Amino acid sequence: MSESDARATGETTDRIVRATYCALCRHGYADLTMQDIADESDLSKAALHYHYESKAALLESFLEFLLESFRDRVEAVDASGPRERLVAVVELLFEPPGGDADAEFRTAMLELKAQAPYVPALRERLVAFDEYLRDELTGTFEAAAEAGLLREDVDPARAAEFVVTVVNGAHTRRVALDRETTAAESALRDYVDGLFVEEAAA
Amino acid sequence: MSESDARATGETTDRIVRATYCALCRHGYADLTMQDIADESDLSKAALHYHYESKAALLESFLEFLLESFRDRVEAVDASGPRERLVAVVELLFEPPGGDADAEFRTAMLELKAQAPYVPALRERLVAFDEYLRDELTGTFEAAAEAGLLREDVDPARAAEFVVTVVNGAHTRRVALDRETTAAESALRDYVDGLFVEEAAA
Repeated sequence: MSESDARATGETTDRIVRATYCALCRHGYADLTMQDIADESDLSKAALHYHYESKAALLESFLEFLLESFRDRVEAVDASGPRERLVAVVELLFEPPGGDADAEFRTAMLELKAQAPYVPALRERLVAFDEYLRDELTGTFEAAAEAGLLREDVDPARAAEFVVTVVNGAHTRRVALDRETTAAESALRDYVDGLFVEEAAA
Repeated sequence: MSESDARATGETTDRIVRATYCALCRHGYADLTMQDIADESDLSKAALHYHYESKAALLESFLEFLLESFRDRVEAVDASGPRERLVAVVELLFEPPGGDADAEFRTAMLELKAQAPYVPALRERLVAFDEYLRDELTGTFEAAAEAGLLREDVDPARAAEFVVTVVNGAHTRRVALDRETTAAESALRDYVDGLFVEEAAA
């Protein structure tokens, strides 16, 4: 293993994350080994172990990467107002993260969620993701309330949590039942719409 | 193994279901063996295999039992009207199914959901449960619509699917994040309330 190979450069991290993604899609979480991840990359198993001491540590870093890239995509949202921002973020939440391997990736993510009670590092990352999402949505609902767009009985934090719950449910049913998320997504859009005061007819 | 032991009497099924429940709570689904289930019952592993040829077949029967007992509880709901019926069924969906072992049981159920893409028999049972629930809720929303209680823009099947999605999301977040379901349950009650026409003030 060369020194440049062993150092956790951004490029190496990218390769490991990509390999983890492929290995998760191919093997699922339960059966996943460090060797499987090494096999998907051009790194040796020893090099992987140099960067990450365990499968859980590697997966933790993988979830951290997912959270960061989701954050980047949310920050890149260019919406004309809070209502448009909510629509755009909800859309992002239903966007397939990985093209062809989407079904396999969703399944692996649900496995990770089911393993979270046993692996504190995984749970922490999942909680961080959930919190980020709730904060983001709460902030946008608050901005809508300040602009007088939201119905007066709507509690921003409560509405945000409800949206996050629906998204989780849609993804769970997608994996467990192979149920398309389109119905949930459009019903969620209606729900969010219903939180806004009626616009005057054009 | 005596003949009475081998015959799948209702009593034997009950014992196996109870043992499966305990074994799932103790070991989770991924690591569960027929021996673990035998250990929780007073049946031998051979007797278990006599009734069920595989772990998947046994789990399929276990899910069938859960669906039937949920059906029984829904049928026992004694509500004065469709609105009250919806409230009662939503309440049932959040009721802990198994007291002390509830957290372990929920985790095992999420594991089963994550395994469904690989085990057709499990997926079939989960789909049947989801369908039963959607049909039940759709029927109740329809009854509410016929009684003129529902807002005119509400589609009963769509509302039913949304409720089922929220319940799935709440249970997933409960397992993955250890997030209490109380907020989701009360937000869901508000959502359902919002589908009804406003009552005249008392």
